[in-house]
Amino acid sequence: MSSLTCQISMSLDGFVAGPNQSIDNPIGEGGMRLHQWPFATDSWREQQGSAGGERTADSEVADEVMRGLGAFIMGRKMFGPGDGPWDETWRGWWGEDPPYHAPVFVLTHHQREPLQMQGGTTFTFVTDGIESALEQARAVAGDQDVAIAGGASAVQQYLAAGLLDELYLHIVPIVLGAGERLLEGVGDPTLEPVKVVASPAVTHVNYRVVSERAREQ
Amino acid sequence: MSSLTCQISMSLDGFVAGPNQSIDNPIGEGGMRLHQWPFATDSWREQQGSAGGERTADSEVADEVMRGLGAFIMGRKMFGPGDGPWDETWRGWWGEDPPYHAPVFVLTHHQREPLQMQGGTTFTFVTDGIESALEQARAVAGDQDVAIAGGASAVQQYLAAGLLDELYLHIVPIVLGAGERLLEGVGDPTLEPVKVVASPAVTHVNYRVVSERAREQ
Repeated sequence: MSSLTCQISMSLDGFVAGPNQSIDNPIGEGGMRLHQWPFATDSWREQQGSAGGERTADSEVADEVMRGLGAFIMGRKMFGPGDGPWDETWRGWWGEDPPYHAPVFVLTHHQREPLQMQGGTTFTFVTDGIESALEQARAVAGDQDVAIAGGASAVQQYLAAGLLDELYLHIVPIVLGAGERLLEGVGDPTLEPVKVVASPAVTHVNYRVVSERAREQ
Repeated sequence: MSSLTCQISMSLDGFVAGPNQSIDNPIGEGGMRLHQWPFATDSWREQQGSAGGERTADSEVADEVMRGLGAFIMGRKMFGPGDGPWDETWRGWWGEDPPYHAPVFVLTHHQREPLQMQGGTTFTFVTDGIESALEQARAVAGDQDVAIAGGASAVQQYLAAGLLDELYLHIVPIVLGAGERLLEGVGDPTLEPVKVVASPAVTHVNYRVVSERAREQ
């Protein structure tokens, strides 16, 4: 069975988004500072179809985290603002060619017809829970892994439920002071650092999440 | 001038002590899990005067963080419970031979005569602020560095005041969920990871704290 993974940038004080998130600033004040590290890399620029950038340790991580993914899961807020019924004109934050290029399952309480975007991305809206979304994602991912694209709440739910296999944290050396924390309400997971990549910009730590079942064996 | 350093173990969700700290459990519920990593090392055992333990990447860090220190600074709670006038019978948490073997300056609002302990440790009680404690510590440390021994509040005060030069975090892969956070009320310091040591137990990241003055130059 394919693994459920998540890679996410977190400040040293534990935030994955800044305070005062809004439709104009969905990752909150200062939140963009969490995502500066890939911009300087050649691999990120290549993924965006532009040239330049440097080959660094961060490049290899930026490549690695996008490899072998057959489907994505994301929370409601990651796809669009609000929490009521869908505004059917909303087609995500990314324009007509989102950067996923694979099926994406959006966790929501409100039904909506699937959206087919350019470049291979489709958004399917799942209203019957996180297990259902994971099952659907695994069915289309085949041998490839499924990744949680964010945000914090989706990661928290899968981690708390013991369904997450791998958490790849990019620990960014900034202090945001406020915003959305990643590791809240997740219980007491057993995490094993299995890979660390250091750069001057960020410390990447890949944690294997040891399930209760694996611990009992 | 000697550097002001701090090395401290922090959970992945940012805590340096667990919840419900008390005189019987000064590092809080679950807090001891932050400090398990040195126990398995040969260097820690040697520092405690016992044999055994393994030579690991963690051993080298346990050695490194104790080298070249000429004096320590600690907060009131790190030395003893309560926040009122001193109970003069209280001589610290460590018995008659504390593990510092150097002058220690305790930040407090209440005067007390210095305490001379065995093994070279002295406790001097400083009531006129963090700059004064740092000045006194530097005066006795000579060419050696001064380390903040903890707890969170002392680290926060020096970091917020721009007086800390180096923060060596041992990022322990546990989620405490509650307790005392390290990086609260510290403003927006500029931190540069200058060294990373990875082990299966913990990820050690040494951050250089870039002062405003250095940034302006």
